[in-house]
Amino acid sequence: MPQLNEQDAALFGKLASVSIDTIWSVLNGLGYPDTFIEGLRPVHADLDRKMVGRAVTLRYLPMRKDLAERIRAEGKPSLNARAAEEASPGTVMVVDAGGEIGAGFLGDVVATRFQVAGGVGLVVDGAIRDLAQVRHMNLSVYVRGTHPGASQRRIIGVDYNIPVRCGGVAVLPGDMLVGDAEGVIVIPAHLAEEVADKARDMEDKEEYLRRKLLSGSSIYGVYPPNEAVLQEYEEWKKGGRAKHF
Amino acid sequence: MPQLNEQDAALFGKLASVSIDTIWSVLNGLGYPDTFIEGLRPVHADLDRKMVGRAVTLRYLPMRKDLAERIRAEGKPSLNARAAEEASPGTVMVVDAGGEIGAGFLGDVVATRFQVAGGVGLVVDGAIRDLAQVRHMNLSVYVRGTHPGASQRRIIGVDYNIPVRCGGVAVLPGDMLVGDAEGVIVIPAHLAEEVADKARDMEDKEEYLRRKLLSGSSIYGVYPPNEAVLQEYEEWKKGGRAKHF
Amino acid sequence: MPQLNEQDAALFGKLASVSIDTIWSVLNGLGYPDTFIEGLRPVHADLDRKMVGRAVTLRYLPMRKDLAERIRAEGKPSLNARAAEEASPGTVMVVDAGGEIGAGFLGDVVATRFQVAGGVGLVVDGAIRDLAQVRHMNLSVYVRGTHPGASQRRIIGVDYNIPVRCGGVAVLPGDMLVGDAEGVIVIPAHLAEEVADKARDMEDKEEYLRRKLLSGSSIYGVYPPNEAVLQEYEEWKKGGRAKHF
Amino acid sequence: MPQLNEQDAALFGKLASVSIDTIWSVLNGLGYPDTFIEGLRPVHADLDRKMVGRAVTLRYLPMRKDLAERIRAEGKPSLNARAAEEASPGTVMVVDAGGEIGAGFLGDVVATRFQVAGGVGLVVDGAIRDLAQVRHMNLSVYVRGTHPGASQRRIIGVDYNIPVRCGGVAVLPGDMLVGDAEGVIVIPAHLAEEVADKARDMEDKEEYLRRKLLSGSSIYGVYPPNEAVLQEYEEWKKGGRAKHF
Amino acid sequence: MPQLNEQDAALFGKLASVSIDTIWSVLNGLGYPDTFIEGLRPVHADLDRKMVGRAVTLRYLPMRKDLAERIRAEGKPSLNARAAEEASPGTVMVVDAGGEIGAGFLGDVVATRFQVAGGVGLVVDGAIRDLAQVRHMNLSVYVRGTHPGASQRRIIGVDYNIPVRCGGVAVLPGDMLVGDAEGVIVIPAHLAEEVADKARDMEDKEEYLRRKLLSGSSIYGVYPPNEAVLQEYEEWKKGGRAKHF
Amino acid sequence: MPQLNEQDAALFGKLASVSIDTIWSVLNGLGYPDTFIEGLRPVHADLDRKMVGRAVTLRYLPMRKDLAERIRAEGKPSLNARAAEEASPGTVMVVDAGGEIGAGFLGDVVATRFQVAGGVGLVVDGAIRDLAQVRHMNLSVYVRGTHPGASQRRIIGVDYNIPVRCGGVAVLPGDMLVGDAEGVIVIPAHLAEEVADKARDMEDKEEYLRRKLLSGSSIYGVYPPNEAVLQEYEEWKKGGRAKHF
Repeated sequence: MPQLNEQDAALFGKLASVSIDTIWSVLNGLGYPDTFIEGLRPVHADLDRKMVGRAVTLRYLPMRKDLAERIRAEGKPSLNARAAEEASPGTVMVVDAGGEIGAGFLGDVVATRFQVAGGVGLVVDGAIRDLAQVRHMNLSVYVRGTHPGASQRRIIGVDYNIPVRCGGVAVLPGDMLVGDAEGVIVIPAHLAEEVADKARDMEDKEEYLRRKLLSGSSIYGVYPPNEAVLQEYEEWKKGGRAKHF
Repeated sequence: MPQLNEQDAALFGKLASVSIDTIWSVLNGLGYPDTFIEGLRPVHADLDRKMVGRAVTLRYLPMRKDLAERIRAEGKPSLNARAAEEASPGTVMVVDAGGEIGAGFLGDVVATRFQVAGGVGLVVDGAIRDLAQVRHMNLSVYVRGTHPGASQRRIIGVDYNIPVRCGGVAVLPGDMLVGDAEGVIVIPAHLAEEVADKARDMEDKEEYLRRKLLSGSSIYGVYPPNEAVLQEYEEWKKGGRAKHF
Repeated sequence: MPQLNEQDAALFGKLASVSIDTIWSVLNGLGYPDTFIEGLRPVHADLDRKMVGRAVTLRYLPMRKDLAERIRAEGKPSLNARAAEEASPGTVMVVDAGGEIGAGFLGDVVATRFQVAGGVGLVVDGAIRDLAQVRHMNLSVYVRGTHPGASQRRIIGVDYNIPVRCGGVAVLPGDMLVGDAEGVIVIPAHLAEEVADKARDMEDKEEYLRRKLLSGSSIYGVYPPNEAVLQEYEEWKKGGRAKHF
Repeated sequence: MPQLNEQDAALFGKLASVSIDTIWSVLNGLGYPDTFIEGLRPVHADLDRKMVGRAVTLRYLPMRKDLAERIRAEGKPSLNARAAEEASPGTVMVVDAGGEIGAGFLGDVVATRFQVAGGVGLVVDGAIRDLAQVRHMNLSVYVRGTHPGASQRRIIGVDYNIPVRCGGVAVLPGDMLVGDAEGVIVIPAHLAEEVADKARDMEDKEEYLRRKLLSGSSIYGVYPPNEAVLQEYEEWKKGGRAKHF
Repeated sequence: MPQLNEQDAALFGKLASVSIDTIWSVLNGLGYPDTFIEGLRPVHADLDRKMVGRAVTLRYLPMRKDLAERIRAEGKPSLNARAAEEASPGTVMVVDAGGEIGAGFLGDVVATRFQVAGGVGLVVDGAIRDLAQVRHMNLSVYVRGTHPGASQRRIIGVDYNIPVRCGGVAVLPGDMLVGDAEGVIVIPAHLAEEVADKARDMEDKEEYLRRKLLSGSSIYGVYPPNEAVLQEYEEWKKGGRAKHF
Repeated sequence: MPQLNEQDAALFGKLASVSIDTIWSVLNGLGYPDTFIEGLRPVHADLDRKMVGRAVTLRYLPMRKDLAERIRAEGKPSLNARAAEEASPGTVMVVDAGGEIGAGFLGDVVATRFQVAGGVGLVVDGAIRDLAQVRHMNLSVYVRGTHPGASQRRIIGVDYNIPVRCGGVAVLPGDMLVGDAEGVIVIPAHLAEEVADKARDMEDKEEYLRRKLLSGSSIYGVYPPNEAVLQEYEEWKKGGRAKHF
């Protein structure tokens, strides 16, 4: 099984340690309010799995005979096979199928190759096939629907690694994606490190506030924290997070 | 952890022992046909959890700058914080956010305080944040959607404990709410004891009929029960429910 | 507990061993592209359960006083009770309730009788009641919604075992239905054996391809398989599927 | 052009003189609250046209090869042609196509025959073709959608003149239908005369109240009318409706 | 017929002279991006009518027996009657019925009183009755749906002139509303004069640009205008808008 | 005003003379069943206007700061301005905005330039602004929605003249589009002449059948026509269409 390189391992690890809600807040503060992919739902069996990955994008159009003939004449592999074949550790396929749920863009055979190549997730504005099998694979799978019908029933792949629309969000090749039971959030590649660090800080603070509340503190002054509580938090952090509540 | 008082403990216990479907039938017979909250879904991990609680209501409007400024100027806490702070054992927050799912009205920090104070459920015609965390808390959570975005992205709280609309049902402060895997039903406060007792009786009878069917009886005459079967049931009840099937 | 006869047991077993996606492909090849029931979702607790059964169909119309009076005057049992009573091993109720989700066509008492009689599934273009109970019964349950309201609140049964519409598919009495986590597919009765056999063959081949991919093979040439790989597969099959990957 | 017989002409005329809202109120009072066909919209060019007619019903199922072959083998005409051919003055086709809008159940050629035969309306829980032509014909046309595709693309007619579902309402052959810019209401055949008369009375009263309001009267006491105003109205009616406002 | 006072006449006139799209741009620039009421459609016959008015707000909840009894016991008029009675020239009723379209909150009799009192528009997140009549009255009517059913079938009025939600926008009593064929935009009361003036200016400029384009000019440099074109425009304005194109 | 060249004038004329339903049938026969753009509606005031044009395609993505900055840095005009500027007689803009209706991709100023340049239609899987003005321009306008908000509120143009998705149909630059009150149909460029001719023939035949029906003929044998009627038709055609009915 291929592995992440060291730098990616560190970045992926940091992102895996924070919630997508915290990431949303950081991105919102940086001028990116629309980063949550809406309308898709996780369909993998283990809802507590965290997905962290890097986007490869695919664009599908409605099936049309002359378009299909032209593409077939080019002799290239189908988009989903190519994306599975070329996947590297941490790849997430982000698929713009225009919301079409009357056919699956991929089934369990292609998903098998994808997983072997290191793929970690499928984020599909459309559908997949073979849900009963795919949901137990080691993949995070977010879709608008599922359908046993083959892709050519409704759609045809036309573009690989161009900017796409997915769940109301623009996704660019190379974007970082983080997913949990709630859904998937998109982080522009050039912001990934900054977002990971800021989110980590924000979660540390929230962890402190949560502990205070669990110990019986009133929420007033604690959330949002006033100056005194922020001060307390800083001391707690410096002091090795030792204080008991 | 705060506890229910004795009277409530009895009422809550009775309601926890009956299905929401039986409650629906009793309420329908009393002239309340529209008591099932529609369009929301449970998102807590343990779908078999039963929720019984008493409504505190919150009303949110679409975000608007002058409205937000006016409310901020009043210096009051935000609605969700207030509801979490003031919760008592058995409180359920019923939130009218007009179905808005583009922002969460509450996240896991406020939910933590709510749970500490004795809160048992969130019934939201709108969304929450932090699903990955909240779904494992000891809360029953029914929502129209989930979103990592902060509330101010879309909504602002304006009213506390007034009659609200939630999932097509009018909910008044103090109403009893019962929820299971199917959803949530609303019981007007003044009917709670009567409904609980009638539902308990109805379920006793259905339990008897179910046993007859499990023993191989034809459904005709048993469901709905004819006079003979009703008689049988009465005897069974008097006889200490001893007869084997 | 009643049992399937020998012939059915063989057919049901074969269908249980293949995915609904493979069945879709076979049916599509036979000129039946629209066989997947759309818009329903499984609500039984064990999502990995496979359903195989034979359709009994029910048609419900919106409730209307004169229609209800006419039917009551005929003195017949309600449709759902009749279907439960007359069920035999492997029966699936397919219910055309026009998508109405404001009332359940059946609750846990009738479902109990249905299960005792050998029923295995409910496929409902509408709703059921008592989800909290029914989801733990030994039934596969696919619905558009769930609602605690009794059927007479919205619907009335009018036809038994006529061709119906369910999730966008025409279902005839006697059709075979196969369901899994993805949903339900409909097989015309006269095609059931042929479809089962062809699907079994197709899955054998896919199993071989999947193993090749798991062993690290490129997807190109393997899926879809080229001549060489098909040859390999034939040999593998003849050779007792012994070759390790 | 065929004509209504005398009795029908009187009934149709009375119904044409009242609003569907008044008819709704009368039917509601008689125990029929769900008589308004929901989800369809008028698509004829003259929105002010009033439709009054008698239902002939058609049921369509999703297209399926073996069903189509069976029906073709019977050698009968297609349902829409039959309904057009057999129409008599005042006929309204009520079509249960399960809401399918991906194909039209009828186009302008069949509509032409229908109109020649005396047909006055199409009420379709589905779609028609040839909207650009049909909207200018002398027909009232209420549909869920429109589509240029031929019916066999998606649907097949299976039943003629049985009770059907249309826009959430049960419609029986022979029911009276009244339509205006708002939509269509269904009157059970045996209630048509009673409803027409009561609606006529109610409208007379409302006409009086409207005049009072137009003359500047306060709404309090007038709508709903108190005893004095009702008395006034009775006198006005007796007095030949002469009083000026 | 009552008339606007002088100050209002001036303000209403200015707002009537600008498009809602220009108003949107001005409001957006002032920090109010969400001012367009979404999901409602105009149903008055004359789509070219411009509506300018001032909001009176009504809040309806789902019907519930005890709530209705409590309100009836208070002996107050129904909300819609009160709003009609108390309307003054330029009043627009803004109704939060939670999107309920299964009953109309008002019919043509109450609408008649409203119009006599000077009311100019109905903006309803819900439905009205009597569309066939109301669409020809001198009112602008924007609704989510229409239904012949009386309000008590589904809803009950609970609040008068409080902040409400309508089509995803927060509306406060006294807000200015402007509507055309596209829909309705909401202007906070304290911004009305400023918005009207800025919108007037913006439209003057667009009028000049449009004339340039009509005369055959390239769009580049003209829209958006560059410095030279802005200069030209200023001169044209000073010069009495005389230059011919 | 620029004019069509001679060859186009002939082709456009032929297509303008046939209905989109006939075109659908011809395309379906050629292996193109999915050519009707679904989900859009005409919003121009003159619903009887026929649109015939040639596609220029635009692709928009959800707004995103870094994407917008990158495009701005390239210094190119916005997509809608470019399409308006470069339009030639008979151009139709086909816009893939992913169904986004929370902002308009174009308003009346750009539409003015488009019309001056010879543009005849806008087919938008998304929204336009300034409906009140645009609906009276000499353009056919089909949209999913309308919104007064400027495009940058939600979307950003990224591609010009690539294959796009619009209303569930793949549209390629250069495709012919025909629209009427029902909607828009897409004809692949290389099939346009063939489709126009076959549709013209089919309509001639239907015209004959329609006349027979109007003269009182039974529909049986006439629609679909039997051999005798087809013979009659051929003679009528040869005889100069003289026979009266």
